[in-house]
Amino acid sequence: MIGKPNYLIEAWSLTEHGLDIDALARSESLFVLSNGHVGLRGNLDEGDPHGLPGTYLNSVHELRPLPYAEAGYGYPESGQTVINVTNGKIIRLLVDDEPFDVRYGDLLTHTRSIDFREGVLSREADWVSPAGQRIRIRSRRMVSFTQRSVAAIYYEIEPVDDSARVVIQSELVANEQLPMRRGDPRAAAVLESPLVSERHRARGSMVELVHCTRHSDIRVAAAMDHIFDGPRSLGVSSESEPDAGRVTATAVLAAGETLRMVKFLAYGWSEQRSLPALRDQAVAALVAARQTGWSGLVDEQREYLGEFWRCADVEVDGDAEVQQAVRFALFHVLQAGARAERRAIPAKGLTGPGYDGHAFWDTESYVLPVLTYTAPAAAADALRWRHSILPMARERAQLLNLDGAAFPWRTIHGEECSGYWPAGTAAYHVNADIADAVIRYVWVTEDTDFEVEVGLEILIETARLWRSIGHHDLSGKFRIDGVTGPDEYSALADNNVYTNLMAQRNLIGAADAVQRHPERARALGVDAETAANWRDAADDMYIPYDAHLEVHPQSDGFTHHQVWDFDSTRPEQYPLLLHFPYFDLYRKQVVKQADLVLAMQRRSDAFTAEQKVRNFAYYEALTVRDSSLSACCQAVMAAECGHLSLAHDYLREAAFMDLKDIEHNTGDGLHVASLAGSWIALVEGFGGLRDTGRLLSFAPRLPEGLTRLSFGLRVRSRHLRVEVVASSATYTVLEGEGMTLVHHGQEVRIPPGQPCTLDVPPAPELPRPQQPPGREPLRFLHQVNGTEVRRAETRRAENARASAGDRPE
Amino acid sequence: MIGKPNYLIEAWSLTEHGLDIDALARSESLFVLSNGHVGLRGNLDEGDPHGLPGTYLNSVHELRPLPYAEAGYGYPESGQTVINVTNGKIIRLLVDDEPFDVRYGDLLTHTRSIDFREGVLSREADWVSPAGQRIRIRSRRMVSFTQRSVAAIYYEIEPVDDSARVVIQSELVANEQLPMRRGDPRAAAVLESPLVSERHRARGSMVELVHCTRHSDIRVAAAMDHIFDGPRSLGVSSESEPDAGRVTATAVLAAGETLRMVKFLAYGWSEQRSLPALRDQAVAALVAARQTGWSGLVDEQREYLGEFWRCADVEVDGDAEVQQAVRFALFHVLQAGARAERRAIPAKGLTGPGYDGHAFWDTESYVLPVLTYTAPAAAADALRWRHSILPMARERAQLLNLDGAAFPWRTIHGEECSGYWPAGTAAYHVNADIADAVIRYVWVTEDTDFEVEVGLEILIETARLWRSIGHHDLSGKFRIDGVTGPDEYSALADNNVYTNLMAQRNLIGAADAVQRHPERARALGVDAETAANWRDAADDMYIPYDAHLEVHPQSDGFTHHQVWDFDSTRPEQYPLLLHFPYFDLYRKQVVKQADLVLAMQRRSDAFTAEQKVRNFAYYEALTVRDSSLSACCQAVMAAECGHLSLAHDYLREAAFMDLKDIEHNTGDGLHVASLAGSWIALVEGFGGLRDTGRLLSFAPRLPEGLTRLSFGLRVRSRHLRVEVVASSATYTVLEGEGMTLVHHGQEVRIPPGQPCTLDVPPAPELPRPQQPPGREPLRFLHQVNGTEVRRAETRRAENARASAGDRPE
Repeated sequence: MIGKPNYLIEAWSLTEHGLDIDALARSESLFVLSNGHVGLRGNLDEGDPHGLPGTYLNSVHELRPLPYAEAGYGYPESGQTVINVTNGKIIRLLVDDEPFDVRYGDLLTHTRSIDFREGVLSREADWVSPAGQRIRIRSRRMVSFTQRSVAAIYYEIEPVDDSARVVIQSELVANEQLPMRRGDPRAAAVLESPLVSERHRARGSMVELVHCTRHSDIRVAAAMDHIFDGPRSLGVSSESEPDAGRVTATAVLAAGETLRMVKFLAYGWSEQRSLPALRDQAVAALVAARQTGWSGLVDEQREYLGEFWRCADVEVDGDAEVQQAVRFALFHVLQAGARAERRAIPAKGLTGPGYDGHAFWDTESYVLPVLTYTAPAAAADALRWRHSILPMARERAQLLNLDGAAFPWRTIHGEECSGYWPAGTAAYHVNADIADAVIRYVWVTEDTDFEVEVGLEILIETARLWRSIGHHDLSGKFRIDGVTGPDEYSALADNNVYTNLMAQRNLIGAADAVQRHPERARALGVDAETAANWRDAADDMYIPYDAHLEVHPQSDGFTHHQVWDFDSTRPEQYPLLLHFPYFDLYRKQVVKQADLVLAMQRRSDAFTAEQKVRNFAYYEALTVRDSSLSACCQAVMAAECGHLSLAHDYLREAAFMDLKDIEHNTGDGLHVASLAGSWIALVEGFGGLRDTGRLLSFAPRLPEGLTRLSFGLRVRSRHLRVEVVASSATYTVLEGEGMTLVHHGQEVRIPPGQPCTLDVPPAPELPRPQQPPGREPLRFLHQVNGTEVRRAETRRAENARASAGDRPE
Repeated sequence: MIGKPNYLIEAWSLTEHGLDIDALARSESLFVLSNGHVGLRGNLDEGDPHGLPGTYLNSVHELRPLPYAEAGYGYPESGQTVINVTNGKIIRLLVDDEPFDVRYGDLLTHTRSIDFREGVLSREADWVSPAGQRIRIRSRRMVSFTQRSVAAIYYEIEPVDDSARVVIQSELVANEQLPMRRGDPRAAAVLESPLVSERHRARGSMVELVHCTRHSDIRVAAAMDHIFDGPRSLGVSSESEPDAGRVTATAVLAAGETLRMVKFLAYGWSEQRSLPALRDQAVAALVAARQTGWSGLVDEQREYLGEFWRCADVEVDGDAEVQQAVRFALFHVLQAGARAERRAIPAKGLTGPGYDGHAFWDTESYVLPVLTYTAPAAAADALRWRHSILPMARERAQLLNLDGAAFPWRTIHGEECSGYWPAGTAAYHVNADIADAVIRYVWVTEDTDFEVEVGLEILIETARLWRSIGHHDLSGKFRIDGVTGPDEYSALADNNVYTNLMAQRNLIGAADAVQRHPERARALGVDAETAANWRDAADDMYIPYDAHLEVHPQSDGFTHHQVWDFDSTRPEQYPLLLHFPYFDLYRKQVVKQADLVLAMQRRSDAFTAEQKVRNFAYYEALTVRDSSLSACCQAVMAAECGHLSLAHDYLREAAFMDLKDIEHNTGDGLHVASLAGSWIALVEGFGGLRDTGRLLSFAPRLPEGLTRLSFGLRVRSRHLRVEVVASSATYTVLEGEGMTLVHHGQEVRIPPGQPCTLDVPPAPELPRPQQPPGREPLRFLHQVNGTEVRRAETRRAENARASAGDRPE
C-alpha cells in the first residue's frame, strides 16, 4: 500500500498517484463518470475496498415516509431518495487463486487519471500478490456522452515475471450492501434492498437483470456484454441469479502476455414501460455499443468533448491550481447536465447520495448560468424538466392556497420533499430562480420555439404565483411577506430583497414574454390586462432600505436585529446550524450564505455602485459561509466592488470545494453548484459578465497574480471569446455576426472575426472588508511544498465536521 | 336505552337524565372526579360501554420518540404522554347470569349527577335485564380532597320485583385496551400496554397490583379494599394476576333487599421509591380511608368544598346557564389544582388524554389567576412545581444559547416536549407568564416565605432569560426579535407587543423582588447592578405602534400584512390550521386567539382607554377564535371597552366550551383554561378586576340581561366580596382589615365589615365591533325549549370538526 495520494496540478486532467484507503469515498466522487443520465462513482474495478459504491440512473429513486413530531397542513408525507442501482462496474480478478485486493500483497504503483478532453477514467496498478506474483492491471472506464444509456470498461491484465492463471469475474450486482452512514441528517437515508428482482438471464457473454423498486415502482433493466482478447486457453462462461449476474473468463498467461476484456454496460428504466420493452431497450443499446466498439466509443467521446471545450474552455494564467480546478469544474458540470434530458440535475449530479439525490434551486441559479453559455441544449433540457413537472407544481400551489405553480424546494420526481417548511416551502424564491433561468436562456439563445413551448408557460405560472403571494399595502407598495430567502440563517421574513427583486424580474419577464407571444399567452389564459397587472406589481415592488445605516436590510427589520456574537463563537461551533438553534440564528444578524449579495449579483441593475460597495462591506462582516453556495457569489461582488484580492480568495475557495474537500463531505458527492461557481467567479467576477441589461455587459479586471483570463461564450448564435490581461481586455467574435456589448459601462461594437482590445480602468482603492473572525476565505498557498497552509485554513478544516452544515436542508 | 340525555339547568349541580351511548366520552369528561393528584374519568361503573377509559395519576407518563423529517439542533427527541393507569373504578355486575350492560335489556331510567358542594358523583339506574329481571343500582363515587391518594365508591343493588342471584366483581385492571384514536395530531398518542407488572396479590377483600412504566421508569402501586353489607348468603372471594385483581361477592337477594359495597381505592407512585415502600404507601392510605369510612370521607369532602365555596362562589342572576356553568367551571378548576402539589396542572387537568396530558402556559395565564384569588395554596403549589423544574429549564436555556431558565412550552415532567419549534420553543412568553403568576401570587397573598424560597429564583432566572433574548438597538430601544406570541396564526415575529410588555413586567418584577430580598438575591448571584440593568432594559422596551392606523401592531410589521381573505373562506375551512398552511397563516392578518387583546388585559396600564377601544375593534375584525383560549380574553376587553352585550356573548362561549362541547373535543378532556376563563370573563370582565397597579382595581358594569353579579376574592388576608347590579356596586370586606381599592378610576377606602356601595357610570355608546363573517361569538339562546339556536352556532358547530384546531400545538 502506498501513502496519501498526491493529486498533480495539471492543466487538462486530474491524476492521483497512490491510494488513500481511508479517503476512498472522496476519490470516488472526484472520479465519477456521468453523462447526466447514468452516473458511476469512481469505485475500484474490483469493488472492494470502497468508500461508497454508487451507480445512479437519473430519476431512479425510492420513497420513504417523512415523519413529524407534530404534523401540519400541507406537510409532504412522502420523501424521495436516490438509490444505488444495479452495479455493472465490478470486475473481480483472481491471480493464482488470490483475489486482487489493494489491501493485501504489495501495491507497487497505483495511478488513476481522468483527462477532461477525453472523458475516460484510466487506472494502472502494479501489484505483487501475497504469494509473490507480480501483475500489471490497466483499466479504462467511460460513460458515453453520445450513447447515453451506455458505459464501457476496457480491462487488461499482464503477469510481469511469471506465468499466472487468472480468472476475471465481470459482474452485475443489485442491492449491494452499503456502508452504514454517519448520523448526518443531510446524507441520503440508507434504503436497504430497494430493488425487487423481476428477471435474470445469462447467455454466452451477456447477462440481463431486470428489477423494480419496491415502493416507487420504477423498473430498471441492466445488461452487460463482453469482448475478450486473450490466449487460446481462454474459457468463458456466464450465470445469473435474481440479484447478480456473472461472466467468468479464465486463462493461463505467460509473463508479459495480456488478457484484454471490453465490457459494455447498458441501462434502461421507466415508470411505465413493460418488462420486455425495457429489457429490449437495454439489450439494443448494448448491441449498438458493441458495434461501435471500445475505440469507437472513445473517439465519439473525444469528439463530443472537443466540441464542448472549443467554446467553453476557460484559460487562467498565473494560478495553475485554479486553471485545473475550473476545467475539472466545467467537466463535472457538463457531466451533470449534458444528457439529463428532461430529468432533474441534482445538487450532487449523479456523483453520490448526498441530499437524497434531490435537485434544488442550485440548478437554475448556479448550474444553468454556466450551461446556458457553454452547452445551451443541456440548459434547455433542464428547463424542460421543470416544465414537465408543472402539473405537480400547480397542484402544490393549489394546496398552498396560491395561484399558478409552486415548484418544490427539493425533489427528484417533482413532488415537494422538504420536511422542514420554514427553509423549504417558504423559500419561494426557487420559482423566480427558475423564471430567471428561462429568461436568461431565451435571451442568450434567442430560442423562440423553446420560449413558446416551454418558457412562456413557466413564466406565466410563476408570475401568477408571485401575484398571489404578494399584495399591495395601503401606500400602494407591493409586498411579499413571510418568505425565506437564500440565506438559511434567516427565515420567514417580510420583503426579502433578493426575493422581491427576483419576483420583480419574474413578473416583468412574464409580461414581456406575453407581449411577444400574445396568442399562445391567450391560450394559457393570460390577456393584456393580466400582463399589465404583473407589470404594475413589479413597478410597485417594495425594496426595504435602511436610511440610517445606508444599506439594504436583507429583509424588513434585519438591520435592527442583534449582531451575532462572533467573538464568543468558538471555531468548533461552525457550522453554526449544528451548534445553535434555528431560533437563535433566525433572529440575529448572521448570514449563512450570500443573500443580499446574491441579489446585487443577479439584479445588478437595481443597485448603485455606491450601494453595492456599502452593502458588500456590511454583509461581509456578517457572512460565515456555512454553505458551499456562497463563496462564488462573494467572489463576483468582491470583484465588482474592486476587492480583487478578496475575490481571488473566494474564487479559490469555490474552485477547491471538492478538490480539497473543504467541507469534508465530498465523499457524499460533488458540490455541483460550487463547481459551477468557479466558472461564475471567473466569468461574472473577473470577467464582469452581466446579462440582465439590454446588452451583454462586461467589466473585466484581474487580481494581482492572475496574468491572463480567457473565456468563451455561446451567445445569440455567436462564439464570443473574451481575453483579459492586467490593463486591457480583448473581445473577439469567433463565429457569427458582430455584436454590440458593454465594456466597463461603455457600449462597444465588436465586428466579426476581429479582436477588439479595450483598456481596463484601474480598480478603486478600498479597504479590504472584514469577515467575522475565523471566517475569512481560505487562502490555500500554491502547492509548492504542499505543507504551508494559512491559519484560517487549518482552523476551518478542523471545524468543518463530517459533511455538516452546508446546505439547503 | 333512552335517548339523548338532557342536562338540567341547576344552580349547584350537573345532572344528566338518560344516556347517549354515542357521546359517552363527552359525559365521561364532564363527570370526571379529581383532586389534582388522582383523576377518574366518569366511566360507567361496569366499565362497558365506554367512550374512553381513563384513570390518571398526576405526572405518570410514558416516553415516546419525537421524529423529524429533517432534524435540527436543540429539537427534543423524547416526548412524554400521559397514560391510563390501573383502573380501579370497575364494578361488574351479574344478575342471574346476565351482565348488567346498558346496551342490552331495557334501561328504564338512568341518572348521573354531580353536586359541586358535595364532590360526589351519584348514579341511579333502573334496568330490566333481557330475561326480565328488574333491578335498581345506585352508586356514588368520589376522589377525596382530604385524603389525596384515595378514591371510594359506594355501590348498591336491589332487585325490584323478584329475587335475584347477583354477582359483583370489583376489579383493578392494568393495561386496559383503549379505543383507536382518530387521526387527530393533538389527541394523545396511543401507547399500548405501557405498564409492566412487578407484583400482584389478593388477600381477603384486598388486592394490590404494582407496575412500572416501560420506558419512563415510574412505579405505580394500586390497591383496593372492600366493605360489604348484604344478606347472610353473601360470599366473598378474591384473586389476582399480573394485570388484574378481582374481589367477587355473590348473594341471592329477595325483591327489595339490597346488597351494598363500599370500595376503597388507593394509589402510590414514584420515580424513586422502592416496590415495598410504594406498596406500603398505597396500603396505608387504604387503611386510613377504611377507617374514615364512606360517610366520613363524604363529610370531609363536603367540608373541604364548603370552605372553598364560602369565598370563591360567584353568583350570577339573570343567566341561569352561566350561573351553572361558572360553578361547574370553578369546581373543575379546583379539581385540577387542589392537590396537584408540586406537580403540573395540565391543560386538561386529569380529565383526559388530550394534548398528551401536557401543561402549557394555560396554567399560569388562565388557571392561576383564578386559584390565586380562590384557593391560593393550590396556586402556590403549581408555582412550586415550576420552581422544581428550574434545573431542566436552566439546562434548556443553556442548550439554546440563552441565560437563566427557559421553561418548556409543553411538558409533564419538565423537559421540553414540543415537536414544532416555531410554535413551541419560540413562544418564550411562557416564561413571562410564569413570572406574572409569581408576581400576582405574591402581591395577592403577601406570602413572603414563598417569595424568598420560590418566587425570587423564578423571577431572577426568567429576567436573566429576557435580558439575553432581547438586545438594545442603535437607538437605545430594547427589542425582542423572532419570537412567537400567544396567537398561533403568527410566529417568529419581532417585538410582539404581548411578549415585550410581559417581559417588561417580568424584568421589573424581578428587580423589585431583588430590592425586597437583597441578601437572598446575592446568594442567587444578583446584585444591584444586575437589577438596575433589568430595570433599564424594561424602561427601554420597544413597543411598536402604527401611527397611520392608530393601532398597535401585534408585532413589528403586522399591520402591513395582507388581511386574510375572510370572504372567500368557507365555513368548513375553520379551524384554519387544518385547511391552510402555516406559511399562509403566519404572513397574513388573521388572529387565532387574543394576543394584542390579551396584552391589553394583562398589561392594562400600558394602554390608554382610547387605544384599547381602537385596538379592540381592529383585532375583533381579524380574530377567528380557533382556540378555546380566546373567548374569555375578548370578553374581558369587550367589557372594558363598553361592548357589554358582546362581552356577554364571549362569556357564554367560554363558559359553555365543554358543557355544550363547542369544539367537539370535550371527550378528550375538559378545556380547563376556558373553564377558568368563565370566571375571568365575569370577574375581570364585568367586575373589571385589575391587579397590576398599586391597588386592586375594579370597574364593574353589567350587560343587559345580567341583573346581579357577586364574587368573592381572597386578597391580602381578607375576604372581599363584590356585588354588582345595574347601577351600583357594593364592596364588603367580610374578613380581615379594611382596604383601599380603585372603583372606576377612583380610590375608595372600604372599612371592614361594612358594605360600601358606589355608583356605576354608564357605558359609552359605541358601535358593536365586527368579527370576520361567520366567526361572531356563539349566542346560545337560553335553553327554554332547547332547540332554537342562532345561525352562527349552527355554522360553527358544523365546522368544529372532531377536536381540531384548538390549541397551542
